[in-house]
Amino acid sequence: MDAQAATKFIRSVRAVRRFADREIPVDTLRDVIETARWTGSAKNVQPWHVVVVRDRAMLGQLAACGEFAYHLKGARLGIVLVMASRGYAFDAGRLTHNVMLGAWAHGVGSCIAYFQPDDNQAKAKELLGIPDDRWVPTGISLGYPADEAALRISSDPGRTSGFAVGRMPLDQFVSWEKFRQTA
Amino acid sequence: MDAQAATKFIRSVRAVRRFADREIPVDTLRDVIETARWTGSAKNVQPWHVVVVRDRAMLGQLAACGEFAYHLKGARLGIVLVMASRGYAFDAGRLTHNVMLGAWAHGVGSCIAYFQPDDNQAKAKELLGIPDDRWVPTGISLGYPADEAALRISSDPGRTSGFAVGRMPLDQFVSWEKFRQTA
Repeated sequence: MDAQAATKFIRSVRAVRRFADREIPVDTLRDVIETARWTGSAKNVQPWHVVVVRDRAMLGQLAACGEFAYHLKGARLGIVLVMASRGYAFDAGRLTHNVMLGAWAHGVGSCIAYFQPDDNQAKAKELLGIPDDRWVPTGISLGYPADEAALRISSDPGRTSGFAVGRMPLDQFVSWEKFRQTA
Repeated sequence: MDAQAATKFIRSVRAVRRFADREIPVDTLRDVIETARWTGSAKNVQPWHVVVVRDRAMLGQLAACGEFAYHLKGARLGIVLVMASRGYAFDAGRLTHNVMLGAWAHGVGSCIAYFQPDDNQAKAKELLGIPDDRWVPTGISLGYPADEAALRISSDPGRTSGFAVGRMPLDQFVSWEKFRQTA
């Protein structure tokens, strides 16, 4: 595979929060799950498990488990991360990233749902029958983007996020040899 | 880009700990940094900065900042993550993942170096002139793989890791609709 094409693809991932009512084919879902399964983790402990949720009623209930979980309501499916314990946030980020990239390879958009604060996470665990000792920080909404604008605009018209668009300039992002040293 | 080719590429990333003495071209490094810069983060806060280290002496000193940092010594370069605070482990995982994938797209291998425990992290910060209030959990070793075996074997012949190889079977990794429910 062409290197530039691959990195261009990686850079093209955006959060998608509004989804088309188009089913995700089983083979696509399987490929996304396989991509997630092969995520690397510290000491290859693989401190994780995922629950795939397609049931609309359940997605609606999970969407209520956090201010930033609302988009699960309109998703075609959700993938909920079940981490072994709270110490694995770093690996949870890596796992989430592989799900998002794997989906995006198929043109399927995604967005991270945060089950916060802790009582919302407890609710999500109860809904899915997840044991109390696991850590369930996030789910991921998945679906084909509703339209072009879905790559940029919130699913909630009343919600003007105010989040920055784009990324910080290169010279703010990187130093050379020492902190804040330019090339 | 072909979806299956893209996900196969994502799944093909492995930790590489032994590196060839071959320079990483500037254009390649630039592309890896751009891929890192475009990583997504919660609320697009981008709670991060990276320090690129090519100086061999410095890499050797950083390699001593943690049991699992030793491979920085043989790396062609290191990319050290400077996170805004300890709360950003999840986003640090995502950023790390983009660096590793971006590098791997160019055939450049990588491995995560953990600056642990805290006194080692303090040492790493001091070496690089990073302010005390930042969180510097990890660096990433980068370089072309020394050989085929470098994709599997530790750089330290005395170190038999005992880490599992491969990944857990699919039915241990995924549940359907509810925890531990099969499809």
